[in-house]
Amino acid sequence: MVPQNIYDDPDFFAAYSSMARSTQGLDGAPEWPSLAAMLPPLDGQRVVDLGCGFGWFTRWAVARGAASVLGVDVSRRMLERAVLETDDPRITYRRGDVDELELPPAAFDLAFSSLTLHYLTDLDRLVRTIRRALVPGGAFVFSAEHPLYTAPTEPGFIDLAGRPVWALDAYQREGPRTTNWLAPGVVKQHRTLTTYLTTLLRHGFALTAFEEWRPTTAELEQHPDWAVELDRPTFLLVAASVGEDG
Amino acid sequence: MVPQNIYDDPDFFAAYSSMARSTQGLDGAPEWPSLAAMLPPLDGQRVVDLGCGFGWFTRWAVARGAASVLGVDVSRRMLERAVLETDDPRITYRRGDVDELELPPAAFDLAFSSLTLHYLTDLDRLVRTIRRALVPGGAFVFSAEHPLYTAPTEPGFIDLAGRPVWALDAYQREGPRTTNWLAPGVVKQHRTLTTYLTTLLRHGFALTAFEEWRPTTAELEQHPDWAVELDRPTFLLVAASVGEDG
Repeated sequence: MVPQNIYDDPDFFAAYSSMARSTQGLDGAPEWPSLAAMLPPLDGQRVVDLGCGFGWFTRWAVARGAASVLGVDVSRRMLERAVLETDDPRITYRRGDVDELELPPAAFDLAFSSLTLHYLTDLDRLVRTIRRALVPGGAFVFSAEHPLYTAPTEPGFIDLAGRPVWALDAYQREGPRTTNWLAPGVVKQHRTLTTYLTTLLRHGFALTAFEEWRPTTAELEQHPDWAVELDRPTFLLVAASVGEDG
Repeated sequence: MVPQNIYDDPDFFAAYSSMARSTQGLDGAPEWPSLAAMLPPLDGQRVVDLGCGFGWFTRWAVARGAASVLGVDVSRRMLERAVLETDDPRITYRRGDVDELELPPAAFDLAFSSLTLHYLTDLDRLVRTIRRALVPGGAFVFSAEHPLYTAPTEPGFIDLAGRPVWALDAYQREGPRTTNWLAPGVVKQHRTLTTYLTTLLRHGFALTAFEEWRPTTAELEQHPDWAVELDRPTFLLVAASVGEDG
């Protein structure tokens, strides 16, 4: 199938490029500190970044001592900017659809992915690919849109007698969801937490961290609009590892 | 604190006793086959059943070869019926609040709990207690009301232009929820999936199975009213294990 590549849609790209996480990088992503806390020490690590976008994480990783970082993304526009903003021989970029990714066996210590997995149609294939590409003791750390965020057929908060409630339905109905996030007709893939977790377990990963991101009290004071995150999380953060015996 | 013991409330007890899971036992619990599939072979196992109720599981476990089963429940009425219906020297019952449970160290191969944990105020204490009570290689298998079911301040489906949606809010606000399930004023404890999973990991358990229960197509044909389970799961099923090296 033709991979969805909404990030190369000019209107979408323009809108995405103006988001805080595009202009400020990792510091503009509220869930980043929690995700960073799940990472192993990066010194000397060989890293693959699946859905690397503008390359914020690739540059951060080498600044933290990673031996090498391979960034993969399907978007030509994003990779163009990533290459322009990167000047480090330890970083390489490859254009490709993560749904069709091929990686060499036992070549990486860490697989990282930020907010990409909810675009993939074949999570099982990717997790199998990552499992083979990691060395014993390796780790897979990712964020994705939380299944509560992706589930509804018509996502949104509704007012229930003055109280906002998230109109949840179809949680168990996995598959595509067409949303109008930044541009009309963006297709995301809803899957349950059960699918995320059991796919990892089935391929021999051990779960090591799990977080449904929520803002701190200090963050809520600075961003009162984030209060909806207390009603319904947007971000799922997961870390899993391969045993030392492979 | 005084443990909540709604099961000894006469009206609640009468209503609960008429439910399928009370009259038909395990076969009357739709989630039971999925939970049973998470259990290790029971032959020779020493089992503790936390919130044993009428003792359906204790009797099932010895019928499957368990060496011993200790059933614990806070409800006098439930234990009375459990004792009346049990005639097996391998089964013992103890009245007690699972929130204040004490167990001997390394005395059990399996800790089991069906739909009890969402009444507890101190999950951390219980998981620590279970961890110490299990031998190396031991397992903890439980069901609980799914956090999506317990989260809302006013749980229920609402009609949104002909479409039922679950009015979700307060997912991240853990703590008591007063519901009118079977009787007015039943207090349950909402906690997130993050808390369930990270409490297990923090105490050295490895996650081995995770399921948000959903009916099969055949079950939906027989019970069309279970279709709401596709919009919002009611039951969370989890299995975790202690490593062979303890």
